[in-house]
Amino acid sequence: MSSSIRIGGLTGRHRERVAEILLATGVFRLDEVDVALEVFDAGRTTPSANSDYTFLGAFTPEDQLVGYVCYGPTSGTDRTFDLYWIAVDPAMHGAGIGTTLLTEVERRLTGQHARLLVVETSSRSDYAQTRAFYRRRGYTESARVHEFYAPSDDRIIFTKRFLTLARTGGEHTSP
Amino acid sequence: MSSSIRIGGLTGRHRERVAEILLATGVFRLDEVDVALEVFDAGRTTPSANSDYTFLGAFTPEDQLVGYVCYGPTSGTDRTFDLYWIAVDPAMHGAGIGTTLLTEVERRLTGQHARLLVVETSSRSDYAQTRAFYRRRGYTESARVHEFYAPSDDRIIFTKRFLTLARTGGEHTSP
Repeated sequence: MSSSIRIGGLTGRHRERVAEILLATGVFRLDEVDVALEVFDAGRTTPSANSDYTFLGAFTPEDQLVGYVCYGPTSGTDRTFDLYWIAVDPAMHGAGIGTTLLTEVERRLTGQHARLLVVETSSRSDYAQTRAFYRRRGYTESARVHEFYAPSDDRIIFTKRFLTLARTGGEHTSP
Repeated sequence: MSSSIRIGGLTGRHRERVAEILLATGVFRLDEVDVALEVFDAGRTTPSANSDYTFLGAFTPEDQLVGYVCYGPTSGTDRTFDLYWIAVDPAMHGAGIGTTLLTEVERRLTGQHARLLVVETSSRSDYAQTRAFYRRRGYTESARVHEFYAPSDDRIIFTKRFLTLARTGGEHTSP
């Protein structure tokens, strides 16, 4: 199934479908959906390789948007990136769309000489599938802030480290 | 010394002095100073108890700004707050101004029924005084992301937990 999925950019006409997918997942609260849409609106106004937020969509052969990912460089760091959201239409869960999106992000980041990709998620039971997804994709729990989000709701920080070129001198090889 | 320090709000006319203090500390890069000033400009446009960013300044009896703090609620959390910046004019270091500012933040957050205050800092040697400052004020290292900022530069997450009222029912007592 995922082999027939096309990865492409998003434009303003995808906004309603992005909102629909976020709501359909059932794991985002309304205020979280609002934040995701604000970032979507801001991100599309600055489409460049240096953009703070890059969006990629997963499209069926019929050109229907069935999932998307948002990521970008972490300000104040040397080649660290944040993965802000991956959302996939629940009707398409299990078809490898999340994996296809994440693999494409990692491929692009490798090309940008990224050093580290960071994903923050919750310890709540409704995020168990999310955590298992990242673990299967080679992400490791780097840190956990006890009861960060709420009582009994920890912030878990997953990271994946990329192989970076050896430095040939004293200078950083930052992008 | 610190007993004669007045804590008060900041307005646009303090912008230049805020930039001066940030640069004088010697621990912020130019791009970090830019981010701090962008937040300063954005924060002052929405001065309310629900503001994302609250600024407090420390003033001498001659009304000179010698330090400031910026904090706010962490989006998507239940009563967790971020301490974004404390900066004190190096000419006034050792006078207890940082402590005066932090104590005032904690006093205000206790009034807002905050549950957790989070400070993120670096493992670099030039932040040793910063880390010692937070430890003395009762902050504990809750988590650390290895080489988050750069090779050999970890992200250290300090937290202070506040006593919160016991709940009397099944409802949250969020502000």
